[in-house]
Amino acid sequence: MKKTVKIGLFGFGCVGQGLYDILQNNTENTGFEAQILKICVKNKEKKREIDASYFTFDKDEILNNSEINLVVELISDAEEAYQIVKKALLSGKNVVTANKKMLALHLEELVRIQKETGTSLLYEAAVCGSIPIIRTLAEYYDNEFLYSVSGIFNGSSNYILSKISNENLSYDVALKQAQKLGFAEADPTLDVAGFDATYKLCLLATQAYGIFINPDEVLRIGINNLKKEDIDFAKNYSVKKENDQNTTNFKVKLVASISRIKSSENNQVLLYVLPVFVDAENPLYNVENENNAVLVEAAFSDKQTFIGKGAGGHPTGSAVLSDISALRFDYQYEYRKTDRNKEKNALGQTLISPTQNVEAEVYLRFENHLSKKELLQNIDFTEILTENENHIIGKIILSELFEKRDFIEKHHIFVALCGEVKAVN
Amino acid sequence: MKKTVKIGLFGFGCVGQGLYDILQNNTENTGFEAQILKICVKNKEKKREIDASYFTFDKDEILNNSEINLVVELISDAEEAYQIVKKALLSGKNVVTANKKMLALHLEELVRIQKETGTSLLYEAAVCGSIPIIRTLAEYYDNEFLYSVSGIFNGSSNYILSKISNENLSYDVALKQAQKLGFAEADPTLDVAGFDATYKLCLLATQAYGIFINPDEVLRIGINNLKKEDIDFAKNYSVKKENDQNTTNFKVKLVASISRIKSSENNQVLLYVLPVFVDAENPLYNVENENNAVLVEAAFSDKQTFIGKGAGGHPTGSAVLSDISALRFDYQYEYRKTDRNKEKNALGQTLISPTQNVEAEVYLRFENHLSKKELLQNIDFTEILTENENHIIGKIILSELFEKRDFIEKHHIFVALCGEVKAVN
Repeated sequence: MKKTVKIGLFGFGCVGQGLYDILQNNTENTGFEAQILKICVKNKEKKREIDASYFTFDKDEILNNSEINLVVELISDAEEAYQIVKKALLSGKNVVTANKKMLALHLEELVRIQKETGTSLLYEAAVCGSIPIIRTLAEYYDNEFLYSVSGIFNGSSNYILSKISNENLSYDVALKQAQKLGFAEADPTLDVAGFDATYKLCLLATQAYGIFINPDEVLRIGINNLKKEDIDFAKNYSVKKENDQNTTNFKVKLVASISRIKSSENNQVLLYVLPVFVDAENPLYNVENENNAVLVEAAFSDKQTFIGKGAGGHPTGSAVLSDISALRFDYQYEYRKTDRNKEKNALGQTLISPTQNVEAEVYLRFENHLSKKELLQNIDFTEILTENENHIIGKIILSELFEKRDFIEKHHIFVALCGEVKAVN
Repeated sequence: MKKTVKIGLFGFGCVGQGLYDILQNNTENTGFEAQILKICVKNKEKKREIDASYFTFDKDEILNNSEINLVVELISDAEEAYQIVKKALLSGKNVVTANKKMLALHLEELVRIQKETGTSLLYEAAVCGSIPIIRTLAEYYDNEFLYSVSGIFNGSSNYILSKISNENLSYDVALKQAQKLGFAEADPTLDVAGFDATYKLCLLATQAYGIFINPDEVLRIGINNLKKEDIDFAKNYSVKKENDQNTTNFKVKLVASISRIKSSENNQVLLYVLPVFVDAENPLYNVENENNAVLVEAAFSDKQTFIGKGAGGHPTGSAVLSDISALRFDYQYEYRKTDRNKEKNALGQTLISPTQNVEAEVYLRFENHLSKKELLQNIDFTEILTENENHIIGKIILSELFEKRDFIEKHHIFVALCGEVKAVN
């Protein structure tokens, strides 16, 4: 049954205003009954484009308003967002949120509260903006055996990589361009160091495999130590493939990935956010600029690629709108895979769990202040394939990379996957 | 509420067996209760891989069985499929079908019956196999103002085009390879002449714009008259773009498209299935071999591309499975855009309707038996841009192309869109 949605909105930044625009201007909208009743903002001084009567500075004016049946949470502070979302669900309101960090940190608890209260928590806009990947995983792949879900989840860093690669810019100039265009934050660490992609990956892990992942436990290395020379190196890097032909002309992409590791029980998954050398056969190769992409590999439906705008007021606003629209019909994510994991657990069956006991071929470039000897004293390779004065290509166990992440960061070492990834027996 | 699905299956070809495999082998399937009770097949002589007790040759053994609550229709005969689906819905059973021709011819009536009987008719597998485009349009874009939905909807013809383009094969050799690999039928007309893509386009028109289209009224020209020289011509074709740079190296793709034509009321759409010269900036450029792709352009969510396997027992079977899974929760397509059109109609507002009053730049190659003079006596161009002894590039009103389709077919003329498409004032 269709119901009228009465919205209390938190935050009126880029996405909040995008949503307001869409609700005002959507010409297809005949019969769509959603109304913004109140907007809670922080800054009392800021000039607003719309009537002042919409605004409040007290969150309880929304949370205690029994007329409001939907809270749309679009603020940036994760802790405050968590308090708002939790209280909204507990007071019986549905919630739509785009806050990936808050969700990645609290999803398990919030899903439990959703169940207990019979409310609905939707968050399509939190992962890859306009790409409907959460809904697709929740609905469409709920019975599929998934090999992997991976992709380019952060538009800012992809924009930077594209500009360096296609227009020969330096990292710093490309980053400044991204900031100027509003793709990257003033403090771009969330984007370029891979935090943003990691949060999104954790949310997809829940929908794709029914597991809850602590973002701190994901192997995460960003592009913040990348230089133009790494991209040039990848362009000229050459690998002999099975058919004995050489693959060359790789691009560097910041890839987030969760994949099953082949083993006797197929119950382990590897999660990472890492720079990767991708070749022209990879669907991510042609995903440029601020675009996002998600690649789903499944036993029966085979490979699916979804490409679209990952950020921006309107693409993200449209994802929020889709969630609002679904709430008119009381749509909920079912978490069927999570439920099945609980059933398996009750039966004493082995569950899917993360592993880093996986060997991968990596490219590792270091700066002059660090001698190769020093580097090799600190980072254990299982095999060194090639080396020269400023880089090493070799095989490494990914748990070793995870453990040495502080050393890597401290010494501005750039790391990228450049070859095979396989389970260690 | 979850319910147990008891299936009566019609047809046990490639997709039917794929479905059977998936239901048997899906290791994620704990708790998925769907059971095939009976399979109705035609051929009494054929050896079957599974127990004979499953099979019947009498369709009423399924249609009159009150234990069966879901009919899965996977036969090729469109007329017989229509009779089966209609009767199943009328007797209160839900239906999952992959029969695009049957749906394109009867969708309006079947949607009405679905409404009247409170049953559910799902058909994700009918359009682009494993790509969840029907569900995405029905659920996710139900409130979006869509500029266009287009793509590569036929895997066989795309395979043929890829092989000619990338491996220098002739059309005939590429077609034989496609047939050998099972991508194309013994009579490949359905694929290469664009019928299959047209049926799919009609189904997407309903989900994207709420309108029902007669497939005979779609401008449809296939690749059956294509020769390798057309692909070579496209490779060397050069167009000056707005930024004064030349675009070259086009590929020929068989593109199905529905798009809004810019006009004062934005209420007209152009539908076609045509060979198109696409450049490297088009997301369809890199979609090769038997892959399908759908491109959605929307006011707020911007451009989305979905790429995946369009055919084959397992990819199509997985789409059927997804529909079956959704039926455990009594999922229905809502046809919200269709309903809104009805509301608009009742209010006397103008509705979306198809138009061919659109001027397009086309490449038209003809054979020796036809003189250019004869050609120009039969086909009216609004402007001729370049011409030589065997081809013309010029502007033409698409309704003229539609009216001359028999002449084009009779004389084996190859036609492709090679430039701008715009409304005629």
